[in-house]
Amino acid sequence: MSLILVVGTKRFSSWSLRPWLALKATDAPFEEVEIALRQPDSKAEILKWSAAGKVPVLIDDGLLVWDSLAICEYLAERFPAAKLWPDDPAARAVARSVSAEMHSGFAVLRQQCSMDLLLDSPLTDPAPDLLIEINRLDALVNDCRTRFGSDGPFLFGHFTIADAMYAPVMTRFATYHLPLGPVAAAYRDTVLALPALAEWKANIRI
Amino acid sequence: MSLILVVGTKRFSSWSLRPWLALKATDAPFEEVEIALRQPDSKAEILKWSAAGKVPVLIDDGLLVWDSLAICEYLAERFPAAKLWPDDPAARAVARSVSAEMHSGFAVLRQQCSMDLLLDSPLTDPAPDLLIEINRLDALVNDCRTRFGSDGPFLFGHFTIADAMYAPVMTRFATYHLPLGPVAAAYRDTVLALPALAEWKANIRI
Repeated sequence: MSLILVVGTKRFSSWSLRPWLALKATDAPFEEVEIALRQPDSKAEILKWSAAGKVPVLIDDGLLVWDSLAICEYLAERFPAAKLWPDDPAARAVARSVSAEMHSGFAVLRQQCSMDLLLDSPLTDPAPDLLIEINRLDALVNDCRTRFGSDGPFLFGHFTIADAMYAPVMTRFATYHLPLGPVAAAYRDTVLALPALAEWKANIRI
Repeated sequence: MSLILVVGTKRFSSWSLRPWLALKATDAPFEEVEIALRQPDSKAEILKWSAAGKVPVLIDDGLLVWDSLAICEYLAERFPAAKLWPDDPAARAVARSVSAEMHSGFAVLRQQCSMDLLLDSPLTDPAPDLLIEINRLDALVNDCRTRFGSDGPFLFGHFTIADAMYAPVMTRFATYHLPLGPVAAAYRDTVLALPALAEWKANIRI
């Protein structure tokens, strides 16, 4: 077995962090390639790996799988023991719903609060459009925790792909000091305490 | 069994068309609710169904599933006989990759060529950033058809979620008269000839 995960600059690449966390949760050994983003040759370097021109990319014994969410789905099938999706079909459907909502949504938050793991910069008085997304995130975390989170501290109890998808945004709530209600704030702290996240941060080089 | 799919204005809602085509491919009976988009009360109408505030939404006996891709994944699990993903794990991984690439990508095409099924408006001389995405789409269709499409005319042979995800963009290639190579052009025509797509178009009311 040969697994390679190609990621972007660890400090900034929220898309890369997601499948990296999911892969770590499988305990499978893998090789990692980090490509420096925001450089003149970044695109060319990524295109050497994937014609889609974006990180992250997973290569499993020659099979190329790309895009954060597709990589996570692939890992869920490849490593069933890791239970990367909830077992219960209803919980799994909602876990996929919130994961897909993150995958294509929250454009304002992405733009106004891009992920920077080394930042500590309070954003006081968020604009109304940002506040709408913050409130949606708060409600979403509350909903998952309340309906499906009784068996553990994560969105669906144990760690799943949904948590991998929401980990970057939880770091933003910390680095930008954005407001959250008590349930979502406790969840943010659970994510921030993940050993795998600490390992990712410890390896920020650039 | 009670299945309800809430969609947006059929003429414009590319996101709604995708799971609608996947649901049609299951042959399951379902109820449809169409919400008029771009109206003052559109958001309020959608929020009556889903706190995420977006269409499409699927309700299966009270279980709410939202976001186009999560609905498609749910349908693939719920109706295994429809084979909404390819059986082969490698083909399925690539089908999910291109589906996720569409789900979060092609921002220029979305912006400059928004889906309008009643349009016939040649876009001559596409801008360079649009051309990059057009070329990526052409290459992507070629790659899937060449590697996985030998058993039928769709991206992975028979109709899958990947085709549902790419159907709206194929309508744009027609309505905006965008350039495609021969393999991708043949695939575009296969999609445009889908009876389900004709049914969707025939029910454009607004």
